[in-house]
Amino acid sequence: MVHKVAVIGAGPSGLTSMKACLEEGMVPTCFESSDDIGGLWKFKEVSEPNRASIYRSLTINIWKEMMCYSDFPIPADYPNYMHHSKILKYFRMYAEHFKLLQHIRLQTSVKSVTQRSDFSRTGQWEVVTENRDGQEERHVFDAVICCSGHFNYPNLPLKDFPGIETFEGKYFHSWDYKGPEDMYGKRVVVIGIGNSGGDIAVEGSRVAEQVYLSTRSGAWVIRQVSDNGLPVDRFNTRFVHIMFKLLPMRFLNWLGEKKLNSMYDHAMYGLKPKHRFFSQIPVINDDLPFKILSGGVIVKPNLKEIRGSSVVFDDGSIVENVDMIVFATGYNYDFPYLQKNAIYKSGPRVGLYKHVLPPNLEHPTLAIVGFIHSDGAIMPQAEMQARWVARVFKGHKKLPSNQAMIKAVEKDTKDTEKNYIVSKLTPIQVDFVEYMDSLAKDIGVGPSLLWLFFTDFPLFQRVFWGPVTAYQYRLMGPGKWEGARKAIFTQFDRMYQPLKTRQLDVQQPSSTGRLIKLSLTLMAGGGALYYIHVRDPATIPTFLSKLRLQTV
Amino acid sequence: MVHKVAVIGAGPSGLTSMKACLEEGMVPTCFESSDDIGGLWKFKEVSEPNRASIYRSLTINIWKEMMCYSDFPIPADYPNYMHHSKILKYFRMYAEHFKLLQHIRLQTSVKSVTQRSDFSRTGQWEVVTENRDGQEERHVFDAVICCSGHFNYPNLPLKDFPGIETFEGKYFHSWDYKGPEDMYGKRVVVIGIGNSGGDIAVEGSRVAEQVYLSTRSGAWVIRQVSDNGLPVDRFNTRFVHIMFKLLPMRFLNWLGEKKLNSMYDHAMYGLKPKHRFFSQIPVINDDLPFKILSGGVIVKPNLKEIRGSSVVFDDGSIVENVDMIVFATGYNYDFPYLQKNAIYKSGPRVGLYKHVLPPNLEHPTLAIVGFIHSDGAIMPQAEMQARWVARVFKGHKKLPSNQAMIKAVEKDTKDTEKNYIVSKLTPIQVDFVEYMDSLAKDIGVGPSLLWLFFTDFPLFQRVFWGPVTAYQYRLMGPGKWEGARKAIFTQFDRMYQPLKTRQLDVQQPSSTGRLIKLSLTLMAGGGALYYIHVRDPATIPTFLSKLRLQTV
Repeated sequence: MVHKVAVIGAGPSGLTSMKACLEEGMVPTCFESSDDIGGLWKFKEVSEPNRASIYRSLTINIWKEMMCYSDFPIPADYPNYMHHSKILKYFRMYAEHFKLLQHIRLQTSVKSVTQRSDFSRTGQWEVVTENRDGQEERHVFDAVICCSGHFNYPNLPLKDFPGIETFEGKYFHSWDYKGPEDMYGKRVVVIGIGNSGGDIAVEGSRVAEQVYLSTRSGAWVIRQVSDNGLPVDRFNTRFVHIMFKLLPMRFLNWLGEKKLNSMYDHAMYGLKPKHRFFSQIPVINDDLPFKILSGGVIVKPNLKEIRGSSVVFDDGSIVENVDMIVFATGYNYDFPYLQKNAIYKSGPRVGLYKHVLPPNLEHPTLAIVGFIHSDGAIMPQAEMQARWVARVFKGHKKLPSNQAMIKAVEKDTKDTEKNYIVSKLTPIQVDFVEYMDSLAKDIGVGPSLLWLFFTDFPLFQRVFWGPVTAYQYRLMGPGKWEGARKAIFTQFDRMYQPLKTRQLDVQQPSSTGRLIKLSLTLMAGGGALYYIHVRDPATIPTFLSKLRLQTV
Repeated sequence: MVHKVAVIGAGPSGLTSMKACLEEGMVPTCFESSDDIGGLWKFKEVSEPNRASIYRSLTINIWKEMMCYSDFPIPADYPNYMHHSKILKYFRMYAEHFKLLQHIRLQTSVKSVTQRSDFSRTGQWEVVTENRDGQEERHVFDAVICCSGHFNYPNLPLKDFPGIETFEGKYFHSWDYKGPEDMYGKRVVVIGIGNSGGDIAVEGSRVAEQVYLSTRSGAWVIRQVSDNGLPVDRFNTRFVHIMFKLLPMRFLNWLGEKKLNSMYDHAMYGLKPKHRFFSQIPVINDDLPFKILSGGVIVKPNLKEIRGSSVVFDDGSIVENVDMIVFATGYNYDFPYLQKNAIYKSGPRVGLYKHVLPPNLEHPTLAIVGFIHSDGAIMPQAEMQARWVARVFKGHKKLPSNQAMIKAVEKDTKDTEKNYIVSKLTPIQVDFVEYMDSLAKDIGVGPSLLWLFFTDFPLFQRVFWGPVTAYQYRLMGPGKWEGARKAIFTQFDRMYQPLKTRQLDVQQPSSTGRLIKLSLTLMAGGGALYYIHVRDPATIPTFLSKLRLQTV
């Protein structure tokens, strides 16, 4: 029976992993190599080796209601998209509220995690740590959760950039970028149009003489300020999710691209990628289109060659007198402390059952939490993974055989390759709602739509039409939180609250609008039944019997 | 007969005024107090007293095709919205191309402009100048064009902000703002939500701890990146203009506000003003909505009081520990060199016939060019004013009596008060297309739609459906430019050109789109006839006789 759990890293995944252990009556010990909690979100003026790094102006690109932990809403007055300083504050509140700090050992790095000689019998691990004075310590744990992140090792593929050794200016990885101070009056080339590349290009362009943004494959770029000014993730609803299951992907791609191009034509702006909209998580950048239109950022194709201070692109165009190249070329992941055979490889990828457990171990006492890539925030996903793995550790959730798990992992890898264009450098990509639902169902904490439809219609409406906020996974089952229903009912209040800084007489929505909403809601019942029927027909009898019990 | 003309100021209005004088065979002498041309658009690291000032990051908010002079398109590869450095380059090209530099006397300020004793007979003016060594010089001119601008004197109404004398931080007018350097980690209150206030709030928020944007009346805020990513002014077409004449303003306001709110709800964002959309030129700011949503900028009501380092707002809310207050409270205008009686006052406003000529002078030999406020750029408007006034100076355009001009001025003032909410501190507001057309018609350079419809249908289509670019006023009449037609046909090429930096296979527009366009164009003939009928029925017989001549 697992009792003592080592948690490696006190970032967003580590914090919630500790909490999940405590919730299931286990005792976590968290080893954090740096001097603070928060992981990635702890800003440092100078990047530290083998640790994630963020820039001064970074704002998270997930709406606060969609990024918070399921039983700890972000304060109502916090902005909808939070600066890293506010995110760190939130983590502190979370850690204090759930009394996690006492389980964290700061400035203690994990040197190795190895199976004990009696692993076959005990499933135990030996963890060797080193404190800031260089003193090593050996510990024995019943289980280990790795939450060390996947943004620690900059990927700087210099060999793909012939002539880089002749470059006369300064070059560095976006991992080293803190702000645009060194870009004043400079000519800057940013390579890569991920979220970092886009942010750095835009920010640099405000002070640089000229910024060029080089992209091999282009990108679909979305705005956080969506229709009517609502946070774009507000539309990540169950209803939309069902539509995605029912409608052909070709149509959805067409629709999504049409919508994006109506904001700004991605072909006209030189951004259009070859891949379809929903096959890759889009880049999020509200400021880029205007920067392109006003010439501050000039989009360029793939960088072909560097010659002294000149940069040559694939189309033969040359930019001269380049002072700086920023490689926003992403990250490699690594678990240097883990013994090699603990990690299962599915092709070049790390293969994890349910994206959490190495499927090849004799005992499921090693987990990797937060090692996922999706259209949602890491916080609720890591939390769900941690809750799931805590149930596994405690034996409440039975696992399939190793063979079956390996088969599932191989299928996941294949599905990812089929459905998504996702770099081999990153974790596997999943669909946020589908993944959350899948883990939740395993441990019995998913919201039963049919149940809600008959027993709590107002709540059903919000769960069905509203954004899939993590509170939905605290409505029932183990870890149920009494505040969850209220949190769902007040999620839009928390959206509006930080904007209520200059009060006006706001008009009521028109009666037409209310009528449409009502009609659509009436259709939702059918939708819900159909949804459940499609997703999991087996639950209907269970539900009906439950309902009978309720009625009796 | 006017021959020698003094032009005061070598900014955008002064340059084109010189050119208009030369075009009509007059000899201009331009006095520029600073050491360079460009006026407002000449960036200086430190603001200079009694001179306009811009900030380092300033980008013009008018599309390049709508801001350029009528016979001098902006280079194709220049961005659609230009940074001030590029605008200055454009002015230099213009000045060199039309050989204006030899007529400019830099570092020579005008001390006084007074009527000569024989003004009644000659209409001449005595102009006293002072060079950089303090030496005065007296000149006699047949006419004077004042192009000294209306952004020279910051309006800093400290008495409206009780307690400002107790403020412990730093405060200054936006005129003094160059960049956000001093705002790092500070708590900043920006007062006023004009274009400067919006820009400074957004830029400051990237480095400040917190920025508060205080606005008494709110504002409608538009994006330059409009539908499909086109520059928003691309939609300032004759077709749209005609719709504005035909449809009720209430409907147009409803439509405009609906459109704006669908981008982001101005009430939800605390921006919504009491006035309707089209009664005030909107604020232009692409970055503000995201800054509000992510909390970098917090919108606040009117500032009521200052107490030490605290700031109290009208709703009673208090912001503490304020380090900095920026007064983006606009500008006063003044013509300190002009003798008092040369200026006609219509209430508190300067009254100018056609927004150019003081209506009360014995001879129309004094003009003010560029003293206008509209939904278009100053460059083409100042140019049109200059062309108009040059025709007046040469006697080609006869003026009404002083009484009639005064009556027209009073009517203009009344119309402005009725149709627009425009500060008493600024020049009178006009509708760009209407004003351009009105001056153009006076001197016979307006595009005749009916004529074009029958004689050059492809051009008609572009003039009717396309943006009202100034080239349209060089198609016919005095000052006709042979390149105008081509400039109109290539205006969209120049829009796309700077964006073609990463080539893609661009799809053709769908045949449905082309069909709709064709049908609408066929309707345009009727529209044009109706338009002319409404606007000026008298021209129809003239046109028909012209057409007969053509046919014979």
